[in-house]
Amino acid sequence: MSHRSIDPSRLLGRIHELGEIGRDADGKLTRLAGSETERLGRDRLVSWLEDAGLEVAVDRIGNIFGIWNAGGVGEKPVMIGSHIDTVINAGIYDGCFGVLSGLEVIQTLKSQGFEPTRPIVVTAFTNEEGVRYAPDMMGSLVYSGGLDAATALEAVGTDGTVLGDELARIGYAGSHAPGFMTPHAYVELHIEQGPVLEREGVPVGAVQDLQGISWQKVTIDGDANHAGTTPISMRRDAGYAAARVITFLRDRAAASNTPTVATVGCIAFEPNAVNVIPSRATFTVDLRDPDEDRLRQEETALAAFLEQLAADEKVGISVERLARFEPVKFDPAIVRLIEAAASDRGLGCKRMTSGAGHDAQMIARIAPSAMIFVPSRGGISHNPKEFTADTDLVAGANILLDVVCGLATGELPK
Amino acid sequence: MSHRSIDPSRLLGRIHELGEIGRDADGKLTRLAGSETERLGRDRLVSWLEDAGLEVAVDRIGNIFGIWNAGGVGEKPVMIGSHIDTVINAGIYDGCFGVLSGLEVIQTLKSQGFEPTRPIVVTAFTNEEGVRYAPDMMGSLVYSGGLDAATALEAVGTDGTVLGDELARIGYAGSHAPGFMTPHAYVELHIEQGPVLEREGVPVGAVQDLQGISWQKVTIDGDANHAGTTPISMRRDAGYAAARVITFLRDRAAASNTPTVATVGCIAFEPNAVNVIPSRATFTVDLRDPDEDRLRQEETALAAFLEQLAADEKVGISVERLARFEPVKFDPAIVRLIEAAASDRGLGCKRMTSGAGHDAQMIARIAPSAMIFVPSRGGISHNPKEFTADTDLVAGANILLDVVCGLATGELPK
Repeated sequence: MSHRSIDPSRLLGRIHELGEIGRDADGKLTRLAGSETERLGRDRLVSWLEDAGLEVAVDRIGNIFGIWNAGGVGEKPVMIGSHIDTVINAGIYDGCFGVLSGLEVIQTLKSQGFEPTRPIVVTAFTNEEGVRYAPDMMGSLVYSGGLDAATALEAVGTDGTVLGDELARIGYAGSHAPGFMTPHAYVELHIEQGPVLEREGVPVGAVQDLQGISWQKVTIDGDANHAGTTPISMRRDAGYAAARVITFLRDRAAASNTPTVATVGCIAFEPNAVNVIPSRATFTVDLRDPDEDRLRQEETALAAFLEQLAADEKVGISVERLARFEPVKFDPAIVRLIEAAASDRGLGCKRMTSGAGHDAQMIARIAPSAMIFVPSRGGISHNPKEFTADTDLVAGANILLDVVCGLATGELPK
Repeated sequence: MSHRSIDPSRLLGRIHELGEIGRDADGKLTRLAGSETERLGRDRLVSWLEDAGLEVAVDRIGNIFGIWNAGGVGEKPVMIGSHIDTVINAGIYDGCFGVLSGLEVIQTLKSQGFEPTRPIVVTAFTNEEGVRYAPDMMGSLVYSGGLDAATALEAVGTDGTVLGDELARIGYAGSHAPGFMTPHAYVELHIEQGPVLEREGVPVGAVQDLQGISWQKVTIDGDANHAGTTPISMRRDAGYAAARVITFLRDRAAASNTPTVATVGCIAFEPNAVNVIPSRATFTVDLRDPDEDRLRQEETALAAFLEQLAADEKVGISVERLARFEPVKFDPAIVRLIEAAASDRGLGCKRMTSGAGHDAQMIARIAPSAMIFVPSRGGISHNPKEFTADTDLVAGANILLDVVCGLATGELPK
């Protein structure tokens, strides 16, 4: 059985070429949204889109579109997207792999005389990472109507710049209204950024949902007494209370039969001295679950634990909500297309949950959407060590090719 | 029954006067060892010693002595001591109360025609706090022969200065050899710096021993993976492992029937991001116990726990020793003198353990020594809120008066 295939060397060459843009003298790759280095990356992408004969459009929030209007002009397009902005000291695959694979798929279909019944569009969304400007996934959030463009453009960066000014400066303050094309369907190909596919030896992930996220900041107040002179029974030890929360969260998640994950990633003690009992402990709680009811249950269980802990340890506890996103269910029909494509090509495929946030979760508000994952070595991402084998990259792009062919020639399967 | 008494207003007046020296524009009191503000405090103390008719001597490490040679010249002196250097943003009592009470006791005895059979000396030891120069309790450590004076004088401060240079600059690089007088007995009056006397409503503590201290720095290494994409079972979470150690130490100390205390005062996670599992957790462990065997048992129990934890959580754990002092047993005869003086005056008295380090633990190497504690409100010390009621200060100084009378007129009771 012979299959269509994208051009592996063209795709891999572009991934590595884009991966060199924004590398500093120390070899570190950083292309923050709206920055001068991101401008260079955007310019390169646009030149590739034009070389492929695509119509290039930019909307007000700086999202870039490469539109192939071959068939069904006026029909809702199949949209393939991701992002090309990066974190600080990034790897080369996160986001870029999805955008460049989208371009590769369209270029392959064009060159092979494929006749879609609707347009096919590749999109690079602005500021997915959210490192310089908050919130993250901003371009897709604005595109799907979840945030007003004018408000987003006023975002002040960590460096004091204003996003709208920076987009104008680098030439990417476009004129199209965000949301100007409503997708027929949206597909995003991405590295997993987690260890599951690699550990299980499965090359393709059919992503059926995306975890809801609950971020809280917990502050515990006790008394800063002398570590030598204060008997254990007289202590109000904020650090000990914080440790109780950390073990509670982890032990609860580990004991459950659910995909719930709980993480305490940040912590600080005050006054943070060897011989002083901590008067204050501040830490973050990151709770995630693909099921909204279960995520709420976890939040409730944490709140109950904190209330009991405050009474037991005679400490003050306050909680601040930092972020909250409901879980996203992707489109089952597109998930089945991904599974079918993998099966046709003899590739193992696993239905899975995305633990990270992606532009697809925003576009899912306005169009049937799903994601394809490929393995990440060691589960490492947002790091120069981020790596996916070339065979896995090419296999993922070919699955995307098949799925786009299906979406661009018929109605979505029910 | 009438008792001798020190002059309350003179003692309290001096405590408050010295407590104003080194106060900055914001009202914060700081007299770091060898600093310009400490020079002012030393100068004031020396002027009071001279006004009281005492012979003033300074040794090579800057310890100041006010010597009353009234009786038994050539006999070993009774020494009363403490320190007048402070921490940053200090209270007015820590150390100064002991030195000024020593002066007060001698001045009282002189004015009342008391005839000691041996000299009585009040001493202010250099750099007890150890904030600017390490180690702490330096002056008494050098005086008792535990550290070579030349080495101590080369100590480089947190501000890059050299202690010997600073002592010369402020005029307190004396000529006497440290240890030039071997005490017959040593007594130190100090605020408790802990909550026990206040909580129990007891005005006098007869300090019979001083906790041994074990300081360790523990580093746990795991993997910095994504908080959303890494299942609980695949994590090597250094932060969780650190929390397990904190709860182990505290729960073990709380469950024991011993005075063991365990504190984790400092902590840091890396990379310390909300959505990243900590790859590294670094924290300090402060273990204290008045019994050396028990302190060793606690260290052994911690080491065994860490070994098991490393295996269970697949993390790397390394331990660095930061400090280790064996417990000190004070002289039982002096402790009995303190108890008898309190009883004579109708004051409640509790035998207790010092949880903090004091100059007395160093002088105990070369002479029978003990300490008298008075209550600290809220157990607070090293803080502007440090407070002891005037009645408690005066009562403590009168107990010191009685004890010194006893020590200066006879042999130590057996």
